[in-house]
Amino acid sequence: MIEVHAFRDGTPLEEHLVLGDAERLIEDDRNFVWIDVTDPQRDEIDALGAIFALHPLTIEDAHHRHQRPKVELFEGYAFVVVHPLAMRDGPDGDELMDQELHAFVGRRYIATLRYGDEPFPLQGVKHRWLGQSEMLGSEGGGFATYVLVDEVVDGYLSIVEAFEDRADDLEDDVFGAPVSEGQGSELQERIFRLKREVVRLRRFAAPLRQALDMIQEEPRLTGSKLQPYYRDVTEHVIRVTELADNIRDLLTSLLEVRVSQVANRMNDIMKKLSAWAGIILVPTLIAGIYGMNFNDMPELRWAVGYPAALGTMVVSGGILYVVFKRKGWL
Amino acid sequence: MIEVHAFRDGTPLEEHLVLGDAERLIEDDRNFVWIDVTDPQRDEIDALGAIFALHPLTIEDAHHRHQRPKVELFEGYAFVVVHPLAMRDGPDGDELMDQELHAFVGRRYIATLRYGDEPFPLQGVKHRWLGQSEMLGSEGGGFATYVLVDEVVDGYLSIVEAFEDRADDLEDDVFGAPVSEGQGSELQERIFRLKREVVRLRRFAAPLRQALDMIQEEPRLTGSKLQPYYRDVTEHVIRVTELADNIRDLLTSLLEVRVSQVANRMNDIMKKLSAWAGIILVPTLIAGIYGMNFNDMPELRWAVGYPAALGTMVVSGGILYVVFKRKGWL
Amino acid sequence: MIEVHAFRDGTPLEEHLVLGDAERLIEDDRNFVWIDVTDPQRDEIDALGAIFALHPLTIEDAHHRHQRPKVELFEGYAFVVVHPLAMRDGPDGDELMDQELHAFVGRRYIATLRYGDEPFPLQGVKHRWLGQSEMLGSEGGGFATYVLVDEVVDGYLSIVEAFEDRADDLEDDVFGAPVSEGQGSELQERIFRLKREVVRLRRFAAPLRQALDMIQEEPRLTGSKLQPYYRDVTEHVIRVTELADNIRDLLTSLLEVRVSQVANRMNDIMKKLSAWAGIILVPTLIAGIYGMNFNDMPELRWAVGYPAALGTMVVSGGILYVVFKRKGWL
Amino acid sequence: MIEVHAFRDGTPLEEHLVLGDAERLIEDDRNFVWIDVTDPQRDEIDALGAIFALHPLTIEDAHHRHQRPKVELFEGYAFVVVHPLAMRDGPDGDELMDQELHAFVGRRYIATLRYGDEPFPLQGVKHRWLGQSEMLGSEGGGFATYVLVDEVVDGYLSIVEAFEDRADDLEDDVFGAPVSEGQGSELQERIFRLKREVVRLRRFAAPLRQALDMIQEEPRLTGSKLQPYYRDVTEHVIRVTELADNIRDLLTSLLEVRVSQVANRMNDIMKKLSAWAGIILVPTLIAGIYGMNFNDMPELRWAVGYPAALGTMVVSGGILYVVFKRKGWL
Amino acid sequence: MIEVHAFRDGTPLEEHLVLGDAERLIEDDRNFVWIDVTDPQRDEIDALGAIFALHPLTIEDAHHRHQRPKVELFEGYAFVVVHPLAMRDGPDGDELMDQELHAFVGRRYIATLRYGDEPFPLQGVKHRWLGQSEMLGSEGGGFATYVLVDEVVDGYLSIVEAFEDRADDLEDDVFGAPVSEGQGSELQERIFRLKREVVRLRRFAAPLRQALDMIQEEPRLTGSKLQPYYRDVTEHVIRVTELADNIRDLLTSLLEVRVSQVANRMNDIMKKLSAWAGIILVPTLIAGIYGMNFNDMPELRWAVGYPAALGTMVVSGGILYVVFKRKGWL
Repeated sequence: MIEVHAFRDGTPLEEHLVLGDAERLIEDDRNFVWIDVTDPQRDEIDALGAIFALHPLTIEDAHHRHQRPKVELFEGYAFVVVHPLAMRDGPDGDELMDQELHAFVGRRYIATLRYGDEPFPLQGVKHRWLGQSEMLGSEGGGFATYVLVDEVVDGYLSIVEAFEDRADDLEDDVFGAPVSEGQGSELQERIFRLKREVVRLRRFAAPLRQALDMIQEEPRLTGSKLQPYYRDVTEHVIRVTELADNIRDLLTSLLEVRVSQVANRMNDIMKKLSAWAGIILVPTLIAGIYGMNFNDMPELRWAVGYPAALGTMVVSGGILYVVFKRKGWL
Repeated sequence: MIEVHAFRDGTPLEEHLVLGDAERLIEDDRNFVWIDVTDPQRDEIDALGAIFALHPLTIEDAHHRHQRPKVELFEGYAFVVVHPLAMRDGPDGDELMDQELHAFVGRRYIATLRYGDEPFPLQGVKHRWLGQSEMLGSEGGGFATYVLVDEVVDGYLSIVEAFEDRADDLEDDVFGAPVSEGQGSELQERIFRLKREVVRLRRFAAPLRQALDMIQEEPRLTGSKLQPYYRDVTEHVIRVTELADNIRDLLTSLLEVRVSQVANRMNDIMKKLSAWAGIILVPTLIAGIYGMNFNDMPELRWAVGYPAALGTMVVSGGILYVVFKRKGWL
Repeated sequence: MIEVHAFRDGTPLEEHLVLGDAERLIEDDRNFVWIDVTDPQRDEIDALGAIFALHPLTIEDAHHRHQRPKVELFEGYAFVVVHPLAMRDGPDGDELMDQELHAFVGRRYIATLRYGDEPFPLQGVKHRWLGQSEMLGSEGGGFATYVLVDEVVDGYLSIVEAFEDRADDLEDDVFGAPVSEGQGSELQERIFRLKREVVRLRRFAAPLRQALDMIQEEPRLTGSKLQPYYRDVTEHVIRVTELADNIRDLLTSLLEVRVSQVANRMNDIMKKLSAWAGIILVPTLIAGIYGMNFNDMPELRWAVGYPAALGTMVVSGGILYVVFKRKGWL
Repeated sequence: MIEVHAFRDGTPLEEHLVLGDAERLIEDDRNFVWIDVTDPQRDEIDALGAIFALHPLTIEDAHHRHQRPKVELFEGYAFVVVHPLAMRDGPDGDELMDQELHAFVGRRYIATLRYGDEPFPLQGVKHRWLGQSEMLGSEGGGFATYVLVDEVVDGYLSIVEAFEDRADDLEDDVFGAPVSEGQGSELQERIFRLKREVVRLRRFAAPLRQALDMIQEEPRLTGSKLQPYYRDVTEHVIRVTELADNIRDLLTSLLEVRVSQVANRMNDIMKKLSAWAGIILVPTLIAGIYGMNFNDMPELRWAVGYPAALGTMVVSGGILYVVFKRKGWL
Repeated sequence: MIEVHAFRDGTPLEEHLVLGDAERLIEDDRNFVWIDVTDPQRDEIDALGAIFALHPLTIEDAHHRHQRPKVELFEGYAFVVVHPLAMRDGPDGDELMDQELHAFVGRRYIATLRYGDEPFPLQGVKHRWLGQSEMLGSEGGGFATYVLVDEVVDGYLSIVEAFEDRADDLEDDVFGAPVSEGQGSELQERIFRLKREVVRLRRFAAPLRQALDMIQEEPRLTGSKLQPYYRDVTEHVIRVTELADNIRDLLTSLLEVRVSQVANRMNDIMKKLSAWAGIILVPTLIAGIYGMNFNDMPELRWAVGYPAALGTMVVSGGILYVVFKRKGWL
């Protein structure tokens, strides 16, 4: 579905516009045109390609989706690919949902193609465009792109901070909950899954740094007034990737600690097993001895024989218990 | 076997051509000649060397095969080595089959040498050449090479996506199937083998990036019109290597998780073993006690002695069972 | 809370100043103004923004806090973010407390924004400013910033050296204390937590290197006289990151050694268990034999039968004991 | 031992030459002189130093041996260090033997110093010099050095491919042979030793890349005609290092897989142990029960008592056997 | 303690000199002055600072010690920090002793500050200065510094080669000594400690590379005549770091192999334990059976009953023994 919006000197035109108007409007340098396509179809992409004279490769990329985050400069426009992410409840806990978004950006227009079942919402972006209407009026596509990418990266920052919290929870679980609770494997699975999502986030965020450098090489799009803005969003991209790296390393260490906790726990179990085996087997041996059928076993005839034997069993078991307790095996 | 094809202004000439015609045809700047050699023999390579004035080192490389993916610029031509890959059923699951391909590329010709039992099929490449005949007409070898490399890299993308699916399956197997099913080692072998194939794919893909940069340094082959195309295929190469890196890291983590699952499982087994040993050994001890031959063991004479002893055994075993159950050992 | 200080030719003016005076004072090139804001409020930041003509992005960053350590050059001023750290008693041992500090630095002024419950104390900084008043007089903001960053980095150095000591202690604990003391997991937790804090420290220190390079690119702030000073603090930043890397690697190795110690210990326990099981079970078998009820068991009628049986038990147990002792299993 | 050979326009002079002739011969630009020194002695090196005006540091390096692979350019000559490698039977399987080789290369001469008990044989090198006598005639030392390094690198390629085969064998052993065969440690030792040799090979090969770049910076030695040759051997060096990296990573993974196989195997053993212990201990308990001496144990008087008890033992053991078999413990 | 030495045209002046003479002597371009300070005190450093017009930061660094290895160029002199190392017997085996050394180097002088209880001996350095007196005469401080650094790096080379030998010994120990000897943990400690010392060595050596590049940027100190010398010592620094990296990787692998050996050993022990448990428990069960008190147990009345029972025990044990032996469990 295609929606067409236009801004004159940064103020929205309150007309109902169709794709055909776009061509006319962008000829006037005071206008800025935003074409928004959700769930883009082949013919819609081709129509945009005709209006903005897009390179066949751009059209092909837009058809295929699944592009890396990137900015490609073509004659007269920039092709921008970003992957906004949303947290979603998955079958195995929260998962990141990829909301791939393509944009064709010229001096006086931006066309956004939003893919997927739940495409990336652009209300926030539009709100900021209107909030700095003088920038939108003077800088046009360069500013519109900055706001778009900045919103995406702000989303990354929220996610990476949520991941940080979850890593802290996992840390508490690893050190807090005793290993013996039988939840070991489940904890490892949670660590693994979080790590996988962190790596996925990083994969979408990291190439943006190079992409942002690339778009700043096109002076027609990004004049010197925009330079601090692009530097700022680049800084945020770096922060996202650094935090993601940190969380990943932390989770790796946590998994190692877990393995070593399990090994420790095994030692404890083995020691307990050994100790109790001893405490049971020694009286069993004593019982075995007095179960022998020798004709001449004087103890058997003693009046105190039986209580003494029982006593010996208890005492031997008790001594072993104390010894093992002292050695920390029990 | 050598086949010779020619295109005038991008349109195929419908003549039957032999190697001797090639020399004549490439002198006319409107022609483009494609020489395709499958399972190249020494004399065929030498014949090509004579026609296109190839450097002795190029001829030697073509004789030896097993070259790294690369582009080497020589006086008047480029020497291109790529390694298309095909999935094949191997004795231990799917395996990648290397279909090494060399190409000598000049402004007006391309000679492709396809090695191996099942050489890389070029129908798709030819189809795309004819589909953009004006590009083939104007850009000649530079365009022909782009299409060739792009097809190879598209093959890599399909493979890497298939590998991604398989890694997901392995992940499900690791977290889904209980460790005790005795399939542990087999799962690790599958993880290892997939990882090895991923690394192999990456080894063939990654050097292409540098190779594509190299060929763009030769302006006679790759004019500015081709620049977006080469940028596009470079982008795909990066995507392949990034995905391969991701899969490799995922598989490494998965193997670690597996090891830690096995250790956890060991703990469970040890706890079960300890618990059941206790449940059996305590009644055994009781039985041993009443098997002693003391003259004076009053319980032996009680009417309820025997049932009481059996009862004690059952109760002690039962108490242990409940205790261990509560501690999660059973 | 805002405090305003001024220095003429490096000497403090003993007047009570308010924010309004700052604007007037920095117009005179002999003055240097220091505005110190603790726990900055929105309106205070906005007021500073108005006085020093700060870029909207700087103001936004100051509002949001949680910035990466960085230096950003704007028209007429530099925006500096550092993260001083203080050691604090946490629930799980010592922890690093982040005392984020922002500074707006111009040729004739520095404005410091100190965040957090316990903001970074600036007495030491002020003391060094007064100690080199001629530098403060001639170099102004460039010198003031150097002193500020140098104090922060000196703090990092103290911390990293304290961490080094603690890593040494952990090393002693790993190699000194026997594994069987049951403190295994707790030691691993201490290693993990120290490693995490070391990584945190590194994360705050490492970006300073690039930030210090950045500020030296602004000749109006950092003249050639300051170059050795900035080189010196850069050197200290490198030292901090190198030491942090070292400690991290050491702790990683230590954790691995610990895991392998635990495995060794397990072997010892298993051997002991096997040995004692043998020593008890063999006499039990002997007792079992003479507990059989065959009519014709000649040993049962021997006068020395019983002592001989007991003797056999002792001897067999004793032999096993000696054998296992010799093999090092006991 | 010093041997002196000379070539005029690439053709060998059939005279017997001594060191003294060298000085005279290299003055004629049509000549090329090759001085070959096996097991060089101090005085021989000093004599060469005098003839070719070598720098004191070159002479010192030649005296000391154990240099890194390198090319150092001095006034009028290049100092080349390579480490040819030969496979040799060692006490712990095949080992790489280092055949360090130094060369002093000028425009019209090359002096090769071959160290060690079995110095690197130069027949192949000489054969190729004569095979391309026109290159030797026109390019002299630059070409001679190329052939020398190319032979060394070809040796590396053979070795690295042999290592690849051996890594494949190890992979088969790891996945083929059951862990229980008691050969576990020996397999790990073989993996470790191969990895060590691979790393050693890489250490000698990798610096050659930089060395080959270095020599191409000296236009008097390596004219443009030699450029493709040097590029070719550089390509081979990269192939060696890439293959070595691959093998090393493979072996690392293999070792990890092995560890995890061992852990799996342990689980199997533990399960078997638990199962059999249960199968034996339950009948033992039953036997213990009927060995009790209570006066009133009705079963003891039953005619079918004994067979029933035996039957219960067999049945209980059998049930456990079936249960454990189904659970995959046996 | 300060000692002052002077050389005229490279030849030592045989006068007794004090610090006051230095200022006079360095004004004559034929002289070269060496001031050597052992265990430098604050006032001595300050005195040097006054004579050679040292920058306050240099003086501060010299006061504080614990600097990174570096070369800093100041107006008129270079500040050099190196860390010579000596092997020393420590409580836990050999340890590296840091002999930090600072030097202020000008065209006509060098001042060496040697810290620590056992400062780095300079006899060897002085001997080489006198041995190449013409270089000392013409190149002055640049040459003196080269010799100093070269001696330090030669020390590193000796140490790294000693470490290589020790790593070989550890390798032999890991593969030679059986794991069961109970020395497992001690071996791991030795591996860990050697690795730590290797990392320490590397930390002192690696920054020298950059430092040596830095000093060569000052043409007044290091003329073209010195260039091969500095290149040579740089080469040695690289060799030290490469060897250190190798040893570190080897030790890491060795530790991993050790862990996996321990796990293997555990398997062997478990198998042995299982086997012997079976061999003892089966006869125990038989004895238990014939210890039952059933009235009607025909075997009990057989004359051969008892020997037969004993025989069954021996045979069952024997069969199990043979079976386990064949399976390699014993």
